Amino acid sequence: MKKVKVGFQGELGAFSQEAVRQLLGDRAAVVPFQRFEEVFRALDRSETDASVIPIENTLAGSVHENYDHLLHFDVKIVAETNVRIVHNLMAPPGVRFRDIRRLYSHPVALNQCLQFFSDHPEIERVPFYDTAGSVKMVMEEKLPDAGAIASTVAASIYGAHILRRSIEDDRQNFTRFFLLNAKRRVVPEERSVKVWKTSIVFNTRNVPGALFRSLSVFALRDLNLNKIESRPLRGKPWEYLFYVDFEGREDDPVAQKALGHLAELADFMRVLGSYPRGH
Amino acid sequence: MKKVKVGFQGELGAFSQEAVRQLLGDRAAVVPFQRFEEVFRALDRSETDASVIPIENTLAGSVHENYDHLLHFDVKIVAETNVRIVHNLMAPPGVRFRDIRRLYSHPVALNQCLQFFSDHPEIERVPFYDTAGSVKMVMEEKLPDAGAIASTVAASIYGAHILRRSIEDDRQNFTRFFLLNAKRRVVPEERSVKVWKTSIVFNTRNVPGALFRSLSVFALRDLNLNKIESRPLRGKPWEYLFYVDFEGREDDPVAQKALGHLAELADFMRVLGSYPRGH
Repeated sequence: MKKVKVGFQGELGAFSQEAVRQLLGDRAAVVPFQRFEEVFRALDRSETDASVIPIENTLAGSVHENYDHLLHFDVKIVAETNVRIVHNLMAPPGVRFRDIRRLYSHPVALNQCLQFFSDHPEIERVPFYDTAGSVKMVMEEKLPDAGAIASTVAASIYGAHILRRSIEDDRQNFTRFFLLNAKRRVVPEERSVKVWKTSIVFNTRNVPGALFRSLSVFALRDLNLNKIESRPLRGKPWEYLFYVDFEGREDDPVAQKALGHLAELADFMRVLGSYPRGH
Repeated sequence: MKKVKVGFQGELGAFSQEAVRQLLGDRAAVVPFQRFEEVFRALDRSETDASVIPIENTLAGSVHENYDHLLHFDVKIVAETNVRIVHNLMAPPGVRFRDIRRLYSHPVALNQCLQFFSDHPEIERVPFYDTAGSVKMVMEEKLPDAGAIASTVAASIYGAHILRRSIEDDRQNFTRFFLLNAKRRVVPEERSVKVWKTSIVFNTRNVPGALFRSLSVFALRDLNLNKIESRPLRGKPWEYLFYVDFEGREDDPVAQKALGHLAELADFMRVLGSYPRGH
């Protein structure tokens, strides 16, 4: 079976790779990129078959850069999944916990382990561009007093030893990922889908009550809203684009009517995709 | 006259300092801090009389960290102002434009000058923690081939020469700042205030249509909404806090009724402050 080439941001072992596994299992061959923009561009140019991107974290909030890319690249959201984020402290074999003076990781991960750092004031936090990348680096450099904070998958890929498991402050730490495709459709298996979700982006005319009226197209049809996110509208200071997720499928008759109604009210509207609700 | 001690994030010459000048003129004595959290904490502990913080930029969007601090610290928003962001290329005296190989600045500033970097591929972008801080650094280090991107105020404070003015991609670049105070009220002069704004934060019960109903308390009373921002609610995955700015003063009878109505619908609601609309 030919594998599906899936781009993601980060080094091998990043949480995005776990999302790829949850979404596509063995069918995926992962292609790491350094920046989110490259992940989108590779898909746009058909250099990959699909992309997996993080869109929001239950503690850190939305990944706003990716909302902007969803607008600027012609891609479709075809699935979502939630990954439980567990931060583990790891180091090269031979380095003991009491040797550790510096811990490398992505700034978001470091900020999610504040209690640990407060309990261990002798350990310095060092921001690095990627969680898995920080493991790769401490392994390659063979640093005798440094470790990294990353996933168990990253530990096994790079051969690091886990010295402390689950050092995050808050166990309610999940990241939601989207599976995107461009022309060639990569559809995850759809066993008995009960709930569909649709993501859209629109901007309202700059008149009083415009957002309220836009949301009424869903409320008046009992379509449940899961999320609303606002982003600045370029060239129009203090006006906004709204990204909305609602329960329903783009081609459902009720959703069709709601979207038609919204198109009447909005200056601009685009459906970013419909997908089964993730676990 | 005793000066008002106003905390802000960044080095002297940061855009926040221009916001302080617009808000308080000569009455302010500025106190720079490295991190936003320190700006809030100093105010909370009465080490400063007021704080000035950026809350959103017309290109980069909201400063989400500061939305979170507004929730966690007991402060009041008492004024707002908009600062036009102009990015200038500057270097130590004697360094010519053609010598420049690296430009230091805050990542947001670097990202707002992409056309300039595309036109000058020989110049490398180097992220630094602060715009004004990058000028201070290139001046102190006397780097022969490096410059910084910052404000004209930063150039004059540190004695850098401006080699190219206004290299930003988009002139519609404004940052909105809040003036905050704690116990001792620092009120800017209120000559003939026409429009007041009020900022609030609330979360809705997790039931269908909850956000729509929350916004109805404003729409049904013709109170114009200027902004809505969502942030994750800690401990409740996939639930959100909403930050809303509406036109009206907290103690207006109509606003009072709207806020009372919202308190009926929301699990939690707090007024962050009322202030004259900024210019």
